[in-house]
Amino acid sequence: MSIEKAEQAVAKLEIDKKYYPNFHIAPVAGWMNDPNGLIYFNGQYHVFFQHHPYDANWGPMHWGHLVSDDLISWRRLPIALAPDQEFDRSGCFSGSAVDNSGELCLIYTGHIHLSGEGPTEKIYQTQCLATSKDGIHFEKHGTILAPEEGIMHFRDPKVWQQDGRWWMVVGKRDLDDVGQVVLYSSEDLKKWQLEQVLVSDIDPDVYMLECPDFFPLGDKWILMFSPQGYKAKEYQYRNLFQSGYIVGEWQPGRPFTIIKPFQEMDFGHDFYAPQSFLAKDGRRLVFGWMDMWQSIMPSKADNWAGSLTIPRELILDADNNVRNRPIKELEALRSEQFSLSNLTLNSEVVKTDIDAVSCELKVEFDLTASDAERFGLELAVTKESKTLLYVDLQSNRIVLDRSLSGEGVRGYRSVPLPKTETLTLHIFLDSSSIEVFINEDLYSISSRIYPTPSTERKVNLFAENGTAKVVAVDSWQLKSIY
Amino acid sequence: MSIEKAEQAVAKLEIDKKYYPNFHIAPVAGWMNDPNGLIYFNGQYHVFFQHHPYDANWGPMHWGHLVSDDLISWRRLPIALAPDQEFDRSGCFSGSAVDNSGELCLIYTGHIHLSGEGPTEKIYQTQCLATSKDGIHFEKHGTILAPEEGIMHFRDPKVWQQDGRWWMVVGKRDLDDVGQVVLYSSEDLKKWQLEQVLVSDIDPDVYMLECPDFFPLGDKWILMFSPQGYKAKEYQYRNLFQSGYIVGEWQPGRPFTIIKPFQEMDFGHDFYAPQSFLAKDGRRLVFGWMDMWQSIMPSKADNWAGSLTIPRELILDADNNVRNRPIKELEALRSEQFSLSNLTLNSEVVKTDIDAVSCELKVEFDLTASDAERFGLELAVTKESKTLLYVDLQSNRIVLDRSLSGEGVRGYRSVPLPKTETLTLHIFLDSSSIEVFINEDLYSISSRIYPTPSTERKVNLFAENGTAKVVAVDSWQLKSIY
Repeated sequence: MSIEKAEQAVAKLEIDKKYYPNFHIAPVAGWMNDPNGLIYFNGQYHVFFQHHPYDANWGPMHWGHLVSDDLISWRRLPIALAPDQEFDRSGCFSGSAVDNSGELCLIYTGHIHLSGEGPTEKIYQTQCLATSKDGIHFEKHGTILAPEEGIMHFRDPKVWQQDGRWWMVVGKRDLDDVGQVVLYSSEDLKKWQLEQVLVSDIDPDVYMLECPDFFPLGDKWILMFSPQGYKAKEYQYRNLFQSGYIVGEWQPGRPFTIIKPFQEMDFGHDFYAPQSFLAKDGRRLVFGWMDMWQSIMPSKADNWAGSLTIPRELILDADNNVRNRPIKELEALRSEQFSLSNLTLNSEVVKTDIDAVSCELKVEFDLTASDAERFGLELAVTKESKTLLYVDLQSNRIVLDRSLSGEGVRGYRSVPLPKTETLTLHIFLDSSSIEVFINEDLYSISSRIYPTPSTERKVNLFAENGTAKVVAVDSWQLKSIY
Repeated sequence: MSIEKAEQAVAKLEIDKKYYPNFHIAPVAGWMNDPNGLIYFNGQYHVFFQHHPYDANWGPMHWGHLVSDDLISWRRLPIALAPDQEFDRSGCFSGSAVDNSGELCLIYTGHIHLSGEGPTEKIYQTQCLATSKDGIHFEKHGTILAPEEGIMHFRDPKVWQQDGRWWMVVGKRDLDDVGQVVLYSSEDLKKWQLEQVLVSDIDPDVYMLECPDFFPLGDKWILMFSPQGYKAKEYQYRNLFQSGYIVGEWQPGRPFTIIKPFQEMDFGHDFYAPQSFLAKDGRRLVFGWMDMWQSIMPSKADNWAGSLTIPRELILDADNNVRNRPIKELEALRSEQFSLSNLTLNSEVVKTDIDAVSCELKVEFDLTASDAERFGLELAVTKESKTLLYVDLQSNRIVLDRSLSGEGVRGYRSVPLPKTETLTLHIFLDSSSIEVFINEDLYSISSRIYPTPSTERKVNLFAENGTAKVVAVDSWQLKSIY
């Protein structure tokens, strides 16, 4: 399973682009999941991603690769890692990247199937190192950190440099099926010593913490990860797996003191495995995988599957919430603008001229002058499908409803309605996704949608059983990132 | 505006029956609102109703009239009251009936427009008496109770006999625009004396209490009425006007002691002005008007408007909630039965063979084995329309959603999901209505729906994003009450 063979395979996959994103990172063909190795290195931003280049289903993991000068215009590079060594023979699983004195180092999980798949599977996972001078071609150096005897799930290393040492967090399922994030440190990226277990047993049902990330934000330390096992509880933990964070205080040699327990980070159907990185100006940015395990992925029939979110900036607010908002660079994607203002809806649906195939929308409602039971937007409206985003004044929530979003995706996700006088819905609509940012960065909702193929996808405003006051609508067509 | 002229007018109205109910009381043509004069008298049940026989819009009020031996088979009688006297010249408004030693007495509101209509209108309302020996033809005796100087809104007398006296409750808007229910008593039904104000100023926004009713239930006294002015608050008070009750203790000569403040009685879109009466076996029954002021009433285009609910029995539970359930007599309307049992739904829609034009359904879910985000029923499904009734495990509510119910009706209504192991939805579907009784009588939801005309209206079961366990479905086609 060499890189050359993988490149040949992916080149042979012909894709149908009806759901293919215009301004989101997706595989040229085949399967994508987690973002990996995010880094600003040698004047360029690198995005790697979990990739199966042979078909649109998950399979032996490779690392796909793109670069950008500005975070909005992306160029595809050859596959960076293929599972071609004994220590990573079943897959090059997720990991991160660091700049080691001008050498681009990838620290990833070498995945080995010891026997079969399914309930009786035995796996072995170690952290491995690969390095590159040119940022394109990587040399593998094998396992740098192996788990204790009997541990099967031990993966997704995130590495950073601080106070003259290298630090690594790894997700681990311990022998009692308790999910943990474990911290290690190293002088040289090769020999690692255990520092401490940062968190363990955050919930009786949680058995694994995937994709940990640990970084300072404001005056706190954020432990971001993707827990597996939470049971749904009313509006919480509604997806198969979650992604979120714990806020605390930490410094090398000291325990991690938790200030705020686990919070979900995004409230849509499709957000997993976010990984952070530093922009060249020091902002903490993040990409997530905008899909969910075991979800309907109709684009598999088109020979591709998987998309990342738009890049987002992380902010710590005064109440120790980690908020995320679209990076300002995305404004450079804007082309034709359409605006309207001061519109009052009375139990009606009002059509707009906005084309919603690849667009950004900012819609501001005056909550003090709106009493409709439900009011908001019908998005990506085709003859047979539409996605609803609305304020519900009965439940006092903002709802993204996919009941009519196409291709069998269903279900709604929602967040509390903020007690502000105005409400701003900032929306990014691509061919098969919607990302909503509420009051700039109070909440985000990210979901995949599959509008029936149509040259036109419109945007309507509506108010049900009452009045809604729309202060302003601004929309922009968005250009391609390729 | 005599009865003869009214009968000729209504006979000339040709109606389209596409939305006409099969097992609900509705006007033969023209407009209906409140049920009036409900009584078991001389071996028959009488239902009168607010009626405008000249067209399908509200107008000068008459009293329509039907009788039944058994509460399920109804025969239309001539219009009972027309606004043909000085004291009721603008309308014979709502009221009640009593049996005075074999004479059927109607006590109703004589309504007079003193000047114009609309914001500058001046009205005058008095309580009037009409009597009948045969229960068909009524002799009017004029005003028996007039309001104090300056009071305009004073209506909807409900009269009963107790402890050798006649008692009457009347709704009143006092000079400060406060809604009240006032109690009077009389020796002879003609001369009335003020006893007390039973309730006043139940909410700062409520300005009128219409259609009061006051009766014993269990060991308590129930003051049932229809308040006007409540402002919507989350899930509460969502209709233009409400109907509900206060539970308390009372005996003649003593004040009314409130045990439970105002509670809504039904949680649908269309339930107003319920009036109670005693069945011959002593059960306390009720009919409501199954519409709402200022709602969409598409059947107006068909020359009729308005329907009563099915008759329901009132029960006081141990927590002093007044519950309502379909009367057992309705089972005699059942014809072909269709049943199925032990069905597990997995993120799917399952069609049934049930025809839902005029039917009763009992559907039992095992809540302990159901984890779907939403699960329940698609009802009255035609090609273009359907009405959704489902459990929502995110909001923990049972929802009746009219988003796709046809003819521009919109909005959802909901009640809390009970914390029981099984959930029973008992549903009565007629041509243009749905009534749902949850766990027999815990909550009722009554709404008008307008499925697109179709010979077939089907029933589907669904579960969204998860599993739902259907223990049993029983359905019966329902025969006509005429």
